[in-house]
Amino acid sequence: MSLLPSQIQKAVEEFSKLPGIGPKSAERLTFHLLRSSKAQPETLGKALLALKTDLKYCDQCQMITLDKRCRICSDSSRDSKIILVVEEPLEVVAFEKSGYKGLYHVLHGVLSPIDGMGPEQLKLKELIDRCKKDEISEVIIATNLDVEGEATAAYIKQQLHGKVPSITRLAHGLPMGADIEFADQTTLKEAISGRRTL
Amino acid sequence: MSLLPSQIQKAVEEFSKLPGIGPKSAERLTFHLLRSSKAQPETLGKALLALKTDLKYCDQCQMITLDKRCRICSDSSRDSKIILVVEEPLEVVAFEKSGYKGLYHVLHGVLSPIDGMGPEQLKLKELIDRCKKDEISEVIIATNLDVEGEATAAYIKQQLHGKVPSITRLAHGLPMGADIEFADQTTLKEAISGRRTL
Repeated sequence: MSLLPSQIQKAVEEFSKLPGIGPKSAERLTFHLLRSSKAQPETLGKALLALKTDLKYCDQCQMITLDKRCRICSDSSRDSKIILVVEEPLEVVAFEKSGYKGLYHVLHGVLSPIDGMGPEQLKLKELIDRCKKDEISEVIIATNLDVEGEATAAYIKQQLHGKVPSITRLAHGLPMGADIEFADQTTLKEAISGRRTL
Repeated sequence: MSLLPSQIQKAVEEFSKLPGIGPKSAERLTFHLLRSSKAQPETLGKALLALKTDLKYCDQCQMITLDKRCRICSDSSRDSKIILVVEEPLEVVAFEKSGYKGLYHVLHGVLSPIDGMGPEQLKLKELIDRCKKDEISEVIIATNLDVEGEATAAYIKQQLHGKVPSITRLAHGLPMGADIEFADQTTLKEAISGRRTL
């Protein structure tokens, strides 16, 4: 690769460090930007340089924000007695689209001893503090339905025991539009045990 | 998405403009960089800002370079009578690994009327000039083996007719390690018609 000017090699190398982008994709992206207008790599470059500027965690829900407190926590029309606990900021964006009107708490990760993620690495103390300090009627644990997410949910339930009237978990079951024929057995089992009266 | 700080939205938007990266991948890449050290998005950002700085085309072979003439064209130990014609700069890198010791010519594209790529958009005049001006014994046309690549090869052959003693095309046939059982019929046909005496 030393045949190519160093800045091209550098861009390929840096793209390769991103998840899901191998050396070949990194070359393809770099040469796409080389062929494009001068503005395109510059706009992306500037966007990345600015990415972390002034970013803070909301002092209440730990969502990424530019202010001390995020837009959702500052919105007095929302139900401040319900906290929905998610792993990552993007999940807040997803739940907002669903029309949920309570507050959130972003853990910024999930318990995973193998990756060095213990309770101290998560924004868990902040959640417990909120439940002690504020008048919370329900905590909905919306971690993912995988091993780490389930373990984290169990841990949070244990930590909040006696501090919140209601601790709930998102419903498991068939997703909308699902074909029962192709659903896995665990999902079907959960769908039956969580059945509702029509 | 207006929930997220504008610089995050901007990064997602710019990543989405890259080929093969949809909105979901763009979000994943952006949040990967947000979780990473401050250095990673900055290094990639700076690499992209510097990407096109001082880049030139070699005044002989049209390879991307920082100098007036590229390292290969400047290398007097190479066989300057042979020109291997490729579509893109990355293909020069690939042929260099194969041990080829002649010179190159980079077209920077391929004839494709549907994409507005005619002969004037390619570095074709420069190739014809080289063949007239320099003492060239052979031009090897190494455009891709697709419709556009074949059409470009035919066009170049016609343009260089009478100007170069030998105009050749890369051998078609079975790739190394290929399983004949799974080879497509065109490849097998080409492999038979191009057979060599052992």
